[in-house]
Amino acid sequence: MAVSFWNNLLQITKNRVLQQRGVSLYNYTHGFEEHVIKKKLEQFAGGSINLSKDGNGIGVLTVNNPRLMNAFTGTMMLELQEKVTELENWKEGKGLIIRGAENTFCSGSDLNVVKALSSMQDGVNTCMFIRNTLTRLMRLPLISVALVQGKAVGGGAELTTACDFRLMTPGSEIRFVHKEIGLVPGWGGATRLVQLIGSGNALKLLSGALKVDPERAVSLRLAEEILPSSDETGSLEEACTWLNQYTKGPAEVIQAMKKVVIAGRELHLEAALREEKDIFGTVWGGPAHVQALAQRPKHK
Amino acid sequence: MAVSFWNNLLQITKNRVLQQRGVSLYNYTHGFEEHVIKKKLEQFAGGSINLSKDGNGIGVLTVNNPRLMNAFTGTMMLELQEKVTELENWKEGKGLIIRGAENTFCSGSDLNVVKALSSMQDGVNTCMFIRNTLTRLMRLPLISVALVQGKAVGGGAELTTACDFRLMTPGSEIRFVHKEIGLVPGWGGATRLVQLIGSGNALKLLSGALKVDPERAVSLRLAEEILPSSDETGSLEEACTWLNQYTKGPAEVIQAMKKVVIAGRELHLEAALREEKDIFGTVWGGPAHVQALAQRPKHK
Amino acid sequence: MAVSFWNNLLQITKNRVLQQRGVSLYNYTHGFEEHVIKKKLEQFAGGSINLSKDGNGIGVLTVNNPRLMNAFTGTMMLELQEKVTELENWKEGKGLIIRGAENTFCSGSDLNVVKALSSMQDGVNTCMFIRNTLTRLMRLPLISVALVQGKAVGGGAELTTACDFRLMTPGSEIRFVHKEIGLVPGWGGATRLVQLIGSGNALKLLSGALKVDPERAVSLRLAEEILPSSDETGSLEEACTWLNQYTKGPAEVIQAMKKVVIAGRELHLEAALREEKDIFGTVWGGPAHVQALAQRPKHK
Repeated sequence: MAVSFWNNLLQITKNRVLQQRGVSLYNYTHGFEEHVIKKKLEQFAGGSINLSKDGNGIGVLTVNNPRLMNAFTGTMMLELQEKVTELENWKEGKGLIIRGAENTFCSGSDLNVVKALSSMQDGVNTCMFIRNTLTRLMRLPLISVALVQGKAVGGGAELTTACDFRLMTPGSEIRFVHKEIGLVPGWGGATRLVQLIGSGNALKLLSGALKVDPERAVSLRLAEEILPSSDETGSLEEACTWLNQYTKGPAEVIQAMKKVVIAGRELHLEAALREEKDIFGTVWGGPAHVQALAQRPKHK
Repeated sequence: MAVSFWNNLLQITKNRVLQQRGVSLYNYTHGFEEHVIKKKLEQFAGGSINLSKDGNGIGVLTVNNPRLMNAFTGTMMLELQEKVTELENWKEGKGLIIRGAENTFCSGSDLNVVKALSSMQDGVNTCMFIRNTLTRLMRLPLISVALVQGKAVGGGAELTTACDFRLMTPGSEIRFVHKEIGLVPGWGGATRLVQLIGSGNALKLLSGALKVDPERAVSLRLAEEILPSSDETGSLEEACTWLNQYTKGPAEVIQAMKKVVIAGRELHLEAALREEKDIFGTVWGGPAHVQALAQRPKHK
Repeated sequence: MAVSFWNNLLQITKNRVLQQRGVSLYNYTHGFEEHVIKKKLEQFAGGSINLSKDGNGIGVLTVNNPRLMNAFTGTMMLELQEKVTELENWKEGKGLIIRGAENTFCSGSDLNVVKALSSMQDGVNTCMFIRNTLTRLMRLPLISVALVQGKAVGGGAELTTACDFRLMTPGSEIRFVHKEIGLVPGWGGATRLVQLIGSGNALKLLSGALKVDPERAVSLRLAEEILPSSDETGSLEEACTWLNQYTKGPAEVIQAMKKVVIAGRELHLEAALREEKDIFGTVWGGPAHVQALAQRPKHK
């Protein structure tokens, strides 16, 4: 029994990681009723989530609500889910840049939403909804970069951790401000922060509600680089150039590369090694491989 | 079947992490008979474990057996368990400093205990007893610091790894000396060391029985900082000041913050994300949150 | 039911890590038919895998096919498996150095093998065969070092990650070149790379197919050190000297130390802590421990 069950479990995990489209962390067995919370979120309108996709397989997702430092209204939470679904189905996609409108990143939730949904039931359900979306964002088979200008605070700081990389402009800051408002992260940011920078540094940033400037972010290995430009156009170009180093080549190969890294970071070693085999099988003998082989001389 | 079992398993893990009071790694199914080993440990008396708790939610735990460089006698092992139980139930607690008496940290087990319990059965049972205690110590919902003065060797080095952070005074040293006496760590220190500094560096410190001075500890990210003072009073004050950066605010929020970090480091990613939700639910709509919200202007 | 199953599962995992001789990741339930793929690999002869073992418990494994920059032919893949089996049974063994012949490390698979086995079925089976071997190599109770001279590319880069440490000579390079030939790693190298340097850096090296020189490898913590010598004899001596820092002492103690580190990096924290107990039991009261105790004065 034990062995077949174990194989079963591995199979479930494998499917979850490989066929990652639309898979949620929560369903009704966790007390999560998606249609109920969506109805509530619809009532808080304002701002937008914009997605543009270029011909090189790079998408740019803009959190757009500058009046509130790009805080998420209810409808923006719903739109983010739609855009993630669109990205999951983007066959030519290779990279993604997430940024905020008008020179600042994101300040988390719109306080009107927070206050209106301040019952425990609503608060937890809203967080489950966003955490589902951000988990799917994190598992996109695209190399993702948070381009941090201005402030990424609270939920905004959490959003940066759903990307593979963070690039910061001069003078920008990331701050897990939750303690100051009597909370812990609710969008999955604590878990992802521990994975990114280790439990000790995560505990310091969270329990100290520390402001992390670009220099400190780089030394903590939270951010990759400080971009030279701080204006919107210049820094977006620089982020694209940075990302292009890693997205050259066929989309199916870049996507497979991201998938092996997801397996490596999410699965137990043995399961990850097995997963690597299955992902390898998706490119071995595929068009890019066959073409590369044809161009190489046969050893004699 | 598979899904309900899986949910079952998650529930068990969740309960284990959330309701962490008094939970042991070992019970009779592991061949561990706690009352038997406690009886044996009682016979080796000497020294004490002292706990003081201040009004700011900071506890100071002192390993006190200076005659033997603060080695643990049997009764000290028993007392440590009692103090950990007390700390688990300290509702106002936020931080903990562990240190040794008279300017040195701890030298592990009293050799008299080791020699008297040198049968494999006794040795393994003693280690299970201590490892249970140190696992509970590591999971306290308090931000914990080992204040290392003088020498932390053998079990003393292992004890430092049960804390979230290590601060070292000038001239102090951490040394996993086990190889020199034909052993591997038995208090859980190898596992925790791998988690703290990675498997490569852990393998070097363990198999080389290397002396780690403060500078090396900082560069390995084993220690946070080198404190300026090396005397007992000065360094304790400095450690308190350092810790205070992270313990400002209501105890329930600081404790929740530590719990999300525990979840992040102990659980598989998906389980950790789910856990974060439950811990979030303990503070959302709670007094600190409600008060913070009341002080903020409503967006218009 | 749940608890007994869980114990069952832990027992299986424990046995897998402790009695690690000859355990494979794959068997017929994964569609892996070892005897079939071995028959195919036999047809591609050339080169050799050489193993020498010295009296100090240090083995040197040489990948020897200099005509093809030490690429693996089919028979070399079979020989590697044999040598790993031999090392698993080497009771006096403490350390292992892996290197390539004639001043270069290894260039992965012989392209003739790759082309002949370019069907998906054959490609995946070959990789399962090698991944089994490299997983056993990684779990050897020996402290292992890849001595990288010249180039470690493709499968050669993956081979370096199956060792505990990497030492590089001046001018050498590690490069996960897979993207350039339309592939992802197939020898387990992606999974192990994520474990070694984190998912962000692994994603950069893999998706950028970056050349990693010794300086960069050290700063990424992928390599330990840059050796002074670049010639074959000098660098091997230096690698031995480096390794000797960690292999002094009785073989059973060094092997136990490696095993606790394996447990720490492969197992979930709770399981790893339990495992540490069992490994501790293999040395407590053993000859090295008893002898060390006898030499120490009794406390008074």
